[in-house]
Amino acid sequence: MAIKIGILGYGNLGKGVEAAIKKNDDLELVAVYTRRAPESLSIATDTAAVKSIADLESGNEPIDVLVICSGSATDLPQQTPKFAALYNVIDSFDTHANIPAHFSAVDEAAKKAGNIGIISCGWDPGMFSINRVYSLSVLPDGEAYTFWGRGVSQGHSDAVRRIEGVKDCRQYTVPVPAALEAVRSGANPTLTTRQKHTRECFVVAEEGADLERIEKEIKTMPNYFADYDTTVNFISEEEMKANHSTLPHGGSVIYSGTSSEGTGHVIEYSLKLDSNPEFTGSVLAAFARAAYRMNKEGASGAKTVLDIAPAYISPLNGDELRKHYL
Amino acid sequence: MAIKIGILGYGNLGKGVEAAIKKNDDLELVAVYTRRAPESLSIATDTAAVKSIADLESGNEPIDVLVICSGSATDLPQQTPKFAALYNVIDSFDTHANIPAHFSAVDEAAKKAGNIGIISCGWDPGMFSINRVYSLSVLPDGEAYTFWGRGVSQGHSDAVRRIEGVKDCRQYTVPVPAALEAVRSGANPTLTTRQKHTRECFVVAEEGADLERIEKEIKTMPNYFADYDTTVNFISEEEMKANHSTLPHGGSVIYSGTSSEGTGHVIEYSLKLDSNPEFTGSVLAAFARAAYRMNKEGASGAKTVLDIAPAYISPLNGDELRKHYL
Repeated sequence: MAIKIGILGYGNLGKGVEAAIKKNDDLELVAVYTRRAPESLSIATDTAAVKSIADLESGNEPIDVLVICSGSATDLPQQTPKFAALYNVIDSFDTHANIPAHFSAVDEAAKKAGNIGIISCGWDPGMFSINRVYSLSVLPDGEAYTFWGRGVSQGHSDAVRRIEGVKDCRQYTVPVPAALEAVRSGANPTLTTRQKHTRECFVVAEEGADLERIEKEIKTMPNYFADYDTTVNFISEEEMKANHSTLPHGGSVIYSGTSSEGTGHVIEYSLKLDSNPEFTGSVLAAFARAAYRMNKEGASGAKTVLDIAPAYISPLNGDELRKHYL
Repeated sequence: MAIKIGILGYGNLGKGVEAAIKKNDDLELVAVYTRRAPESLSIATDTAAVKSIADLESGNEPIDVLVICSGSATDLPQQTPKFAALYNVIDSFDTHANIPAHFSAVDEAAKKAGNIGIISCGWDPGMFSINRVYSLSVLPDGEAYTFWGRGVSQGHSDAVRRIEGVKDCRQYTVPVPAALEAVRSGANPTLTTRQKHTRECFVVAEEGADLERIEKEIKTMPNYFADYDTTVNFISEEEMKANHSTLPHGGSVIYSGTSSEGTGHVIEYSLKLDSNPEFTGSVLAAFARAAYRMNKEGASGAKTVLDIAPAYISPLNGDELRKHYL
């Protein structure tokens, strides 16, 4: 019997989860839930239904886990606690500063209902967090460095798109090679924001727009760009379509620590992703399996990737894992 | 209250665990247990006792977890089940083919006694296994490649030392750069044993020994060297001491998989270790913490690193982990 999955939200991430489910025989997509008119949506899974988000409210939808693929800014803080009261749920909430509050809200709702609510699942937060915690626990005397990219930051791309005269933008976050090398050498350097990453913007401007002003507005934008060395390239719509239509990403968590005086170790976990939303969707699908299993065993409440043993996300049983992968 | 640790066996690995305990305020080394005459052993922890292995038999030693640092070939299959009946235990059993049998034996003894027995903990098996399982679970349509080195293989060094006329040897396992690059590119190549690693031997021969014969015996040794391109370098004892006295190691687990047609991802976990036994000892110390905690919560039986959530090996609590490392 496959684990029955519902997906809430059918943007890039929802589609990524759908793709991941197709790769897992023990997972079955039952329905996509949307705020749009269901009949307006065409999905890639013939056997699944498209339904309204309102259908979820009954708590009677035939799903084992609801994967909530909405935005962190305003939707997830509402939706995840709300639906954790009705179903096992999982999200990819990534507003770092608000994780403790989100965890509490989901924990309360999920515990009351006897459901599992996994929050902040993806690659950062997610796989990168797991690696930070393993490394830090094994070598407490050390330091973790996280580098992102080369990859498209959707938040930064959106920020540029809001500038007057900008039609489209793709922003790439790029780690500085010298910083990567310094960290990999085990030197434990102190690095400023500017020393770790650069930012590259590919911008399609509206006809007649003041390019100089746009470039200046980008480069001086606080939080997003002012603390970085930023390059702005104006390109045509055709070039945007031809060269910047995918959402690659990746990065590294590099941990450098010592086990005794003069004896150092470097641990590196790195991702090179053709598609950020498909990889994030793949992580969500695997941990949706864990949500179902932990709940079957009687567990409830909010969980993060740090609370879940690796074996819980694998379709293989303990014997198979020990025999072939230990 | 610190978690009270006993170490059984005071070779390189036991010393590595001792070094790791010094880096963790919540762990305390209570005693080293040895087969040698206790008074002949001088350890690096003033506050810990040196006792005979026989003292463990009572089951009354004042320890929360016994870290068993003996060899996988003959000692661990006896010792880990035996002491799992008396204490929470952890070992680094690494004879791959015998893991299922070892797991069963430890599981039976530990369950009967209400103890936890963690087996096969270190970096391979251990951290590498964890990474294989995470990657495989997130991207089931893919392939895992494990590379070891550059680093000293103690098993291969020992095998050469057994050859007549060999006084000392240090064998380095070295991944083939072209193979690493092919795997990192996402090409999913099929690689033979010879294509993945080369072996370099640094040999001190006895005076007057037949070097040509020694080199031939090494290069044709079945299992150990015959399937590899092996280089043999004869060096002096002084050179051995000066350049080959440490035990560095490391390697990579590289996983390459797709989430949909044409969309691929590469996940790499790599270690660069100044000291293999100190890093393995650090992993054992962190998971000893998990053994204690899981047992406190009422769990018993054999576990592997795959059964243990990351949060269990960290001294930080859930709030701290979510706030700072998620």
